[in-house]
Amino acid sequence: MEKEVRLREVGPRDGLQNEQAWINTEDKINLINALGETGLPYIEMTSFVHPKWIPALADASEVVKGIKRRPGVTYGALVPNEKGLERALEAGIDEVSVFISASETHNQKNINKTIDETFPVLKNVIDVAKKEGKTVRGYVSTVFGCPYEGEINQSLLVRTVEQLMEMGVDELSLGDTIGVATPNRVKDVLSLLDFVPIDQIALHFHDTKGMAVANVVAGLEKGVIAFDGSVGGLGGCPYAPGAAGNVATEDLLYLFQGLGLHTGVDMDALLDCAMFVQGKLHKTLPSHNLQAKMGAGGERL
Amino acid sequence: MEKEVRLREVGPRDGLQNEQAWINTEDKINLINALGETGLPYIEMTSFVHPKWIPALADASEVVKGIKRRPGVTYGALVPNEKGLERALEAGIDEVSVFISASETHNQKNINKTIDETFPVLKNVIDVAKKEGKTVRGYVSTVFGCPYEGEINQSLLVRTVEQLMEMGVDELSLGDTIGVATPNRVKDVLSLLDFVPIDQIALHFHDTKGMAVANVVAGLEKGVIAFDGSVGGLGGCPYAPGAAGNVATEDLLYLFQGLGLHTGVDMDALLDCAMFVQGKLHKTLPSHNLQAKMGAGGERL
Repeated sequence: MEKEVRLREVGPRDGLQNEQAWINTEDKINLINALGETGLPYIEMTSFVHPKWIPALADASEVVKGIKRRPGVTYGALVPNEKGLERALEAGIDEVSVFISASETHNQKNINKTIDETFPVLKNVIDVAKKEGKTVRGYVSTVFGCPYEGEINQSLLVRTVEQLMEMGVDELSLGDTIGVATPNRVKDVLSLLDFVPIDQIALHFHDTKGMAVANVVAGLEKGVIAFDGSVGGLGGCPYAPGAAGNVATEDLLYLFQGLGLHTGVDMDALLDCAMFVQGKLHKTLPSHNLQAKMGAGGERL
Repeated sequence: MEKEVRLREVGPRDGLQNEQAWINTEDKINLINALGETGLPYIEMTSFVHPKWIPALADASEVVKGIKRRPGVTYGALVPNEKGLERALEAGIDEVSVFISASETHNQKNINKTIDETFPVLKNVIDVAKKEGKTVRGYVSTVFGCPYEGEINQSLLVRTVEQLMEMGVDELSLGDTIGVATPNRVKDVLSLLDFVPIDQIALHFHDTKGMAVANVVAGLEKGVIAFDGSVGGLGGCPYAPGAAGNVATEDLLYLFQGLGLHTGVDMDALLDCAMFVQGKLHKTLPSHNLQAKMGAGGERL
């Protein structure tokens, strides 16, 4: 039997929250519905962070209420606190995503709380979510480097991950928020965090320095089976220098297909989703496989 | 002591030959001079293919005669036949690059000869080059897939490489011309060609599907120490869908630095070269590290 890997589609949340253009609620719903048809097992639909902070996702409830659920797909959303969780539960979600940063400075800038002040907030959210029968995804951002601090304090990272696991996080998503990791660092961090069952770890790479696919291979070599991607490489754009999105889900799919790994995801259907959202954004998305499909390619030596 | 890897800069040739815009001879010379100052050990300056086929490099002789050579740098050029070699030798080059395809159809479309008809042409070029005291680089293109045939005939690939090695090629550059390889395929091909001394192999990846950096890591794991790159990712452009250039030299450099490998190349100086040529082309180049340097980046979850 083919080895299986799990693609986690975070484009409608992590991608769109970083796009300047407003996408109509109906288009978001159409995108999520189409993504559901590709065979993806997980789709992060939106964020219930206060619209003041992320206006692009101000229609979170309408989106969640508007989509057509495909059986077997887990539909998640990002939730910052109990207030956000209430809205998310009212709208109807399968899985709750909480987030914290491995860097004290990044956490404070992002959430306006210290890491220690963040733990009880997450614990409350997770406790309520679990009582409501929801699974929980825990994002740790800036795991491989911080835009303010540079190097990450390894013991603080370990403590943060320990706390999340103790709170009952079902899947831990380790984020290279600023896209600085290289494969050796990925392996080092996975070794450092080897107290987490490997099938509960997901890797989440932004492609700022072009290392994301190589870092995914490093994760595979360490036994990781879940990887976050963003359809079209949403959230980054070659027209907006320096704004690097998540690695494109279809680039990950190309890798996994080449490696003979089973994902259950249909490439053509996924590329259609990427093309759809690219059309709505009126810009060229960074996905290699999307651009290869759209272009002629041409002969080269 | 740090392990060393060798970066082969092919942008002024493989990159510029695929760009639509005309770059002035003086700008090409300035680019090559600046590349020489970065610490790169090899720069492929241009191509002596007939200007009818590659008008962008019609000024090959002027470029080669115009540059300022930095001691320790090998300055090469692509040469298709004895006529091209005469021009190249007259202009003054250190190393001669010859080329052939692993795919019969691609070779015929590219050179208008069968693979068997190409061997004696290359042999003549190599014999003369060697008599003139030049080293020789042998490109094999479409090693990992052909735009016309798809899969590559493995025994024909072996025979082609054997012929090149018997002719006295000093470095063999295995090209993923259409950028379709995944890391497992890279390892398979290197195993297939294990009769070639590993320190005579270079890997040459185009980034069509976004796999180039991961493929380089696969090459490193098999012991390869030489890798082709193109400053800025020249030859490809996110504005020209489907036109994927070589992997950017600075993205490879970022990888090697992260892995603790020694290259002798200065990142800032290399990024300055990429910025210079991007300015001359008036378009956004695909290099991740270039775009990350030019942009603000911004905070992300």
